[in-house]
Amino acid sequence: MSANAPPAIICTVDTVLLTLQGGALHVLLVRRDKAPYAGAWALPGGYIHAQDDADTQASAARVLRDKAGLQSPYLEQLATFSGLARDPRGWSLAVAYCALVPLEALGGLPPRQGVKLVPVDALPSLPFDHRAMVDAALARVRSKSLYSSLPVHLCGESFTLPQLQTVYEAVLGEAINKVSFRRKMEELGMLEPVPGGMVQGGAHRPAQLYRLRPAFRRTLALSARGL
Amino acid sequence: MSANAPPAIICTVDTVLLTLQGGALHVLLVRRDKAPYAGAWALPGGYIHAQDDADTQASAARVLRDKAGLQSPYLEQLATFSGLARDPRGWSLAVAYCALVPLEALGGLPPRQGVKLVPVDALPSLPFDHRAMVDAALARVRSKSLYSSLPVHLCGESFTLPQLQTVYEAVLGEAINKVSFRRKMEELGMLEPVPGGMVQGGAHRPAQLYRLRPAFRRTLALSARGL
Repeated sequence: MSANAPPAIICTVDTVLLTLQGGALHVLLVRRDKAPYAGAWALPGGYIHAQDDADTQASAARVLRDKAGLQSPYLEQLATFSGLARDPRGWSLAVAYCALVPLEALGGLPPRQGVKLVPVDALPSLPFDHRAMVDAALARVRSKSLYSSLPVHLCGESFTLPQLQTVYEAVLGEAINKVSFRRKMEELGMLEPVPGGMVQGGAHRPAQLYRLRPAFRRTLALSARGL
Repeated sequence: MSANAPPAIICTVDTVLLTLQGGALHVLLVRRDKAPYAGAWALPGGYIHAQDDADTQASAARVLRDKAGLQSPYLEQLATFSGLARDPRGWSLAVAYCALVPLEALGGLPPRQGVKLVPVDALPSLPFDHRAMVDAALARVRSKSLYSSLPVHLCGESFTLPQLQTVYEAVLGEAINKVSFRRKMEELGMLEPVPGGMVQGGAHRPAQLYRLRPAFRRTLALSARGL
């Protein structure tokens, strides 16, 4: 690099991976094994590899695969954070993503060393501007949950409507009226019954199992009006 | 740069600048004076200058100042576009912004050479993925206009409520009920009357002029429910 070349920009991706554990939203943290902040718990992130990654979303997917063993979770671009102050190595730019996964997709965490789930309301101090990224992810997920299929990605492959309502309520942090919840799910048109899939509900009638229609596994169903 | 160094990533910003002219949304295009696509009309964009710019938003503001003579318009980050295919120079990353300005802020365009306004429904073919950026900006502005103060940034410093309603209608592409529009503006709490500011409305009663309250000049007022 010549002496006159402009300073290089450090290009990274970081992902706020959210999941539900015990009815509460948790974020996945990994222990950093390199400087800066070696040993600190942080969001899973890494350099963009121009030679390997089709785009920054592919970078984020690769980092999640390498650091948390995750295969193709639901990923959505959040925002890009940048500037001189956020990384001690120099002027940097981090494309932040939000991933939503069911707890089962994490394959029985925590057997993997250096990976843990932390409730979003009990986060430790995080390096870089990772706290701002978590806040942005929570704001995005909560606002989108009012009018989209987003929280479905926190569910396993199939679920009953009461289970899905519990997930929406956990994300939104408030109870939802059952009738308006069912009307909204119908309007979103994203669910299909699992053929022959019923679960016994204890004292209740057997409940139908539902799953996301294939068209909505990568694209959100949106409603013009909120819950 | 050593032979083993990873390929550098080209880091740029691009801005979709929207304004209202003759009641229709227009986007600002500039004629590119350098390769690639020299001579083509494109979104105003440029390299991030790590030595000068505090962050990518400052890069976007600097490019708009240099290429279109604009001082501090309302700017909002849209999304980051990336990959090997979008720029013939190599793997690149463009942080896209959306700017909303009143026509007056453009200072009597077009006297400036190589800058023009084009109606959003009559766009020429654009280089790079600039068309996708315009589409993302329009989708963002239309969806946010349903529940926020965003369109106010297309108005001049002061305006009557009927004038503001016309701006919302132009952005949304449909008529809005006057009573629900006024209720929504009240709920957003973003406007204040200009002291002593009245305009004669022809056959109508004189109308009060309003302006954005200072707190909302850089931050949007949001409503939980749409128009």
